[in-house]
Amino acid sequence: MKIEGKVTRSVWVEADGWSVGIFDQTVLPHRVAVLRLAAPDDAVRAIATMRTRGAPLIGAVAAYGLALALRADASDDGLRRAYDALLATRPTAINLKWALDEMAAAVRDSAPAARAAAAYRRAAEICDADVAINAAIGRHGLGLIERLAANRRPGQPVNILTHCNAGWLATVDFGTATAPIYLAHDKGIAVHVWVDETRPRNQGASLTAFELGQHGVPHTVIPDNTGGYLMQHGQVDLVIVGTDRVTARGDVCNKIGTYLKALAARDNGVPFYVALPSPTLDFRVNDGLAEIPIEQRAPAEVTGVSGRTADGRIETVTIVPDGSKVANFGFDVTPARLVTGLITERGIVAADARALAEAFPDHASRAVAPRRAAE
Amino acid sequence: MKIEGKVTRSVWVEADGWSVGIFDQTVLPHRVAVLRLAAPDDAVRAIATMRTRGAPLIGAVAAYGLALALRADASDDGLRRAYDALLATRPTAINLKWALDEMAAAVRDSAPAARAAAAYRRAAEICDADVAINAAIGRHGLGLIERLAANRRPGQPVNILTHCNAGWLATVDFGTATAPIYLAHDKGIAVHVWVDETRPRNQGASLTAFELGQHGVPHTVIPDNTGGYLMQHGQVDLVIVGTDRVTARGDVCNKIGTYLKALAARDNGVPFYVALPSPTLDFRVNDGLAEIPIEQRAPAEVTGVSGRTADGRIETVTIVPDGSKVANFGFDVTPARLVTGLITERGIVAADARALAEAFPDHASRAVAPRRAAE
Repeated sequence: MKIEGKVTRSVWVEADGWSVGIFDQTVLPHRVAVLRLAAPDDAVRAIATMRTRGAPLIGAVAAYGLALALRADASDDGLRRAYDALLATRPTAINLKWALDEMAAAVRDSAPAARAAAAYRRAAEICDADVAINAAIGRHGLGLIERLAANRRPGQPVNILTHCNAGWLATVDFGTATAPIYLAHDKGIAVHVWVDETRPRNQGASLTAFELGQHGVPHTVIPDNTGGYLMQHGQVDLVIVGTDRVTARGDVCNKIGTYLKALAARDNGVPFYVALPSPTLDFRVNDGLAEIPIEQRAPAEVTGVSGRTADGRIETVTIVPDGSKVANFGFDVTPARLVTGLITERGIVAADARALAEAFPDHASRAVAPRRAAE
Repeated sequence: MKIEGKVTRSVWVEADGWSVGIFDQTVLPHRVAVLRLAAPDDAVRAIATMRTRGAPLIGAVAAYGLALALRADASDDGLRRAYDALLATRPTAINLKWALDEMAAAVRDSAPAARAAAAYRRAAEICDADVAINAAIGRHGLGLIERLAANRRPGQPVNILTHCNAGWLATVDFGTATAPIYLAHDKGIAVHVWVDETRPRNQGASLTAFELGQHGVPHTVIPDNTGGYLMQHGQVDLVIVGTDRVTARGDVCNKIGTYLKALAARDNGVPFYVALPSPTLDFRVNDGLAEIPIEQRAPAEVTGVSGRTADGRIETVTIVPDGSKVANFGFDVTPARLVTGLITERGIVAADARALAEAFPDHASRAVAPRRAAE
């Protein structure tokens, strides 16, 4: 996709052939800043502080992080330490573990001297695979939008609501939830996106709105409280969100607040779809509510809001009284019963155990690890 | 209630006997500033810019605003102009119209020379009546909390979620949704309040948290996205919200986002109560969704967030990219089917037409005006 008019991915190897470039997503949309990851801990820090975020992109950056680490220390011990440090950055993201396991498998049997090169190769493959997956998600989701558009009067847009950022900034390219939207827009179908601002970190207001705007897609930013009202008044034709983890029976773990939108969609007969690359499937887990541990993030994300001051500085203002406690749960689980369908790279799949096992038998057969409630 | 350790109401006549004092709620919780309303337009401006807000308090301040206006111009024409200007400030708040109608009725038949004095008397009565009503709401709601507390282990608090600010800062004293909470706390019952921050204006984070903190009530501020997660995990025993208007059949118009919490409460078996003084009942309206016009507020409330900078200034930061549109609907309607009960000054009433008409026959008989969908 385009950023400042230039086509780019959201993670890349720099011209030096080894250091890694990403956008610092904490200063978007106010400033476009590239971060160069060169030291082994740079990727750990970038993921932990959410300068890079989004389940698929975290996996891709972590993959390059492991390559960077192996460049410095290719021993078994170095591999283990880098793996552990990267894995600990975001406990909820299943793609992170998937990517790290892929990387470890790709280098484990090589001699230490060959490990870094193998790691860079595998990281590049992981990135290319993500792009291909998202393009396929886009093609499958496009059909949903086309069917809705067919019932519109000319010029009447298809109104799509999304939560958080499952856009190209959350992936290597295209995005997951946004891929069908970008494809529809590029095909000349009139679409309009309701963008939940997505407190506490405002990834919708700052990232989804930014990338849709850069690509020219009509959109409107709304407070997270608004979606129910819009659905009650027929202003939403379709919800598409991303996800950090989907269980064997189709429960969807995604950014906190997703569940509330799913309830509103159900109450108003609005189709609620979840876009996901198959590495997001976690067949070791069945009951998402009982089994997925939810990351608690720093209170400062709730007490403070970052934005641009009148004179162009990026500043954080405190919105909570001194002495008031805050809570900051990162994700919630939308039960499969509220999900109309899962948009995957293999097509649209019902959110139930049988349909998922049939569509992803290769994933189902990997579900051999014991169920771990405290993973 | 207490503010800075001093017992006070949220609107009062100053020592000069005629000018009116309120707290500037736009600078809370960071600064406690009193606004003195002295000119006829001061009340209009204070309500329109939300320096004072909350359905019952708007009514009380508007009442004093009419008294201030009559002090300057007690003619029929002056009365009509002041009535219209005050009524236009907040189209959704039914209490505003109620209070202005009460005021007009109290002064209309007096000679112009006697009107200002009559207006101040009636405004004081409206304030005293609000305090008495809220105390009664508190007593009736207290029973709900006591029953929940009876099933707790000692020291385990009753967890109550609230949205926006229906606290004493929204009324003349006690609050509506908070009245049962304050009474329970003062009686020594362990309560803990989950406070929705309530974007876009953050009245929960800035006002509800502030007033609970000033009174010593344990509370935790949460993003609006969080309530569903908490209810899924058994962390909410009871929801109590306020309302700007309740229809003849019990539909509840309240701050945008209330409907989403009602859906989550229903999905998780959490009782969902609405606290209201009877002037909030509007028996001329039946279907809240179809008939209540929803106020659209300024885009700047969504694009910008106000708070305290590190060096203590109050600043507004922009969180939306330049060029992105925003939408700002002020309220939503929670259908009666999602409401467990209405906590009124006459007791807890079911959210249905028959129960409401039986509990408030005096209000029902007033419903003679034609239904106005575009009111």
